[in-house]
Amino acid sequence: MSRLRTLSWDDSAGALVLLDQTRLPDQEVSVSCPDVDSVIDAIQRLVVRGAPALGAAGAYGVVIAVRQGAREGWTHAELLNQIERLRQARPTAVNLAWGVDRASTVIDAGHAAVLAEANAVANDDAEANRRLSELGARWILDHVERRPLRVLTHCNAGALATTEYGTALGVVRSLHAQTPLEMVYADETRPLLQGSRLTAWELHRDGIPCQIQVDGAAASTILRGLVDVVVIGADRIARNGDTANKIGSVGLALACQAAGIPFVVAAPWSTVDLDTVDGSAIPIELRDAAEVTQVGDQCFAPPGVGAFNPAFDVTPAQYIAAIMTERGVLQPDGRTGLDGLLR
Amino acid sequence: MSRLRTLSWDDSAGALVLLDQTRLPDQEVSVSCPDVDSVIDAIQRLVVRGAPALGAAGAYGVVIAVRQGAREGWTHAELLNQIERLRQARPTAVNLAWGVDRASTVIDAGHAAVLAEANAVANDDAEANRRLSELGARWILDHVERRPLRVLTHCNAGALATTEYGTALGVVRSLHAQTPLEMVYADETRPLLQGSRLTAWELHRDGIPCQIQVDGAAASTILRGLVDVVVIGADRIARNGDTANKIGSVGLALACQAAGIPFVVAAPWSTVDLDTVDGSAIPIELRDAAEVTQVGDQCFAPPGVGAFNPAFDVTPAQYIAAIMTERGVLQPDGRTGLDGLLR
Repeated sequence: MSRLRTLSWDDSAGALVLLDQTRLPDQEVSVSCPDVDSVIDAIQRLVVRGAPALGAAGAYGVVIAVRQGAREGWTHAELLNQIERLRQARPTAVNLAWGVDRASTVIDAGHAAVLAEANAVANDDAEANRRLSELGARWILDHVERRPLRVLTHCNAGALATTEYGTALGVVRSLHAQTPLEMVYADETRPLLQGSRLTAWELHRDGIPCQIQVDGAAASTILRGLVDVVVIGADRIARNGDTANKIGSVGLALACQAAGIPFVVAAPWSTVDLDTVDGSAIPIELRDAAEVTQVGDQCFAPPGVGAFNPAFDVTPAQYIAAIMTERGVLQPDGRTGLDGLLR
Repeated sequence: MSRLRTLSWDDSAGALVLLDQTRLPDQEVSVSCPDVDSVIDAIQRLVVRGAPALGAAGAYGVVIAVRQGAREGWTHAELLNQIERLRQARPTAVNLAWGVDRASTVIDAGHAAVLAEANAVANDDAEANRRLSELGARWILDHVERRPLRVLTHCNAGALATTEYGTALGVVRSLHAQTPLEMVYADETRPLLQGSRLTAWELHRDGIPCQIQVDGAAASTILRGLVDVVVIGADRIARNGDTANKIGSVGLALACQAAGIPFVVAAPWSTVDLDTVDGSAIPIELRDAAEVTQVGDQCFAPPGVGAFNPAFDVTPAQYIAAIMTERGVLQPDGRTGLDGLLR
């Protein structure tokens, strides 16, 4: 089985090559982004998505901006302006801005230095995922008794959301490698069905038992005792541990609390935004109503009715049993800064 | 604006005429059911759905069985067997069995008596809806201060789910008539999108402001303070107040508790099943995985991946602030039988 390539750098074309996630699971096709506009478009259309993958895409986007600027004779101010557009392409995922900023620090050192930094962002993410997945799996095996384990996840925090291996699904993979899982419940994750389209595809490809369910089923699946642990990814984690993730996440946290099972977050340290004091300061992206009123090509809502479509929600730290990062597994108390919880 | 006719009796054809809810909102077409098989098929395909509407459909189904039996020369045992098939067409909604049983008590008195009883079931439901909606709206206005009110509902407990007016949407209509609502958030209600297709259609038709949202958004919409009260219908209410309703309901109840707002259930007394001690004894219908893996004509899940598709969940009485029936508004404590709470 080939390794998933969510994104890669094509040096001859000077382009970022993305596996088009809007076409999965039906088609595995790539999109080549040779300029800033095409990178921003790919990010906004969710050709590439998932916080850690956005970090790497942002870093490579700076490489592309530097090359395009040289080719088209941009002033330094124009270059910075284009980089800022890239940085703001999606507001909630802090990794995008982080990846852009990290590559931007070396733009004065020239194209090769920026490319080296972007490659480092991607490689660091891959390593962080392996490490946090191992630590996270160990924490779960230490804290949850039942074998075989039943896991629930939401959206896609897999290889497709990262440079490789995944965060929440990295933890799932690491668990499964140590002690085969009984079942992974994958919430379909409306409106864009990343759970059905991407998570189920990844799990099935890896031979991990899984079933899809509608998002509304998750609370009762948890309350009925069919789940031992819920593992999700994150788009931004505030200093106190409040976590923004795909819409539908906070409801899972409430159900875990009612059922007395752990709700855990798996994310690289780059997702932690120490400048954001708590969840109330995280901007929540509102997306187009048509994502809700239409499914695929079909419109289900009556003409004239709109939709409220926040892409993310915020889970307060008090509901989060553990945040699994490559720097350690943190048990937030909602007050102490996460940096203060590192040993 | 014409009154919605969810179901009606065509005496010349001896058939139950149903507004085909699988075709809404695109098309308003009727289906005529002249025999037992066609009634069962319509119930199982959700041409007619909603607990109170199923009660009336069940009662008219008995009329059809009696006529078909006379036409085809069934023995009494065959007739009872066909009536039992009808009674079991869907397991969770107690009203279906209740409507069948009520009409069956008079089968020995002949066709005209059974038809009169079925008409009485339908008329009683319409009256019960008006009354419980009025009582429910009064309770909400007494218990929730904010004006204008913001309401959230799930699935469709409207005119389309009943003989007319609706239960949860009856309460919404009654509230709106007294003090115009600011907004009704209608959960789209996967897998079959009754919220988008039916609830939004009914609300928009009545000029009540509404927005659709994905089911996963509901918890955060509630926690963000955008909702004052959640009103849902019910498919079966156990003696202690535990309530089975469309999958996704119990998650709303948890969010209401966390946010400190009332979660209320509106249903005719025929939905209360005093023989069911608590929610653990309510059978939960498992439906076809294809309802989850496909949306409309399109399949989103990868081949080989199945789905877990319970149609209902159970909300424990402890999370329910009030159950609105035509016999009174009951505040369940989870122990006292609901009949004991009636004044």
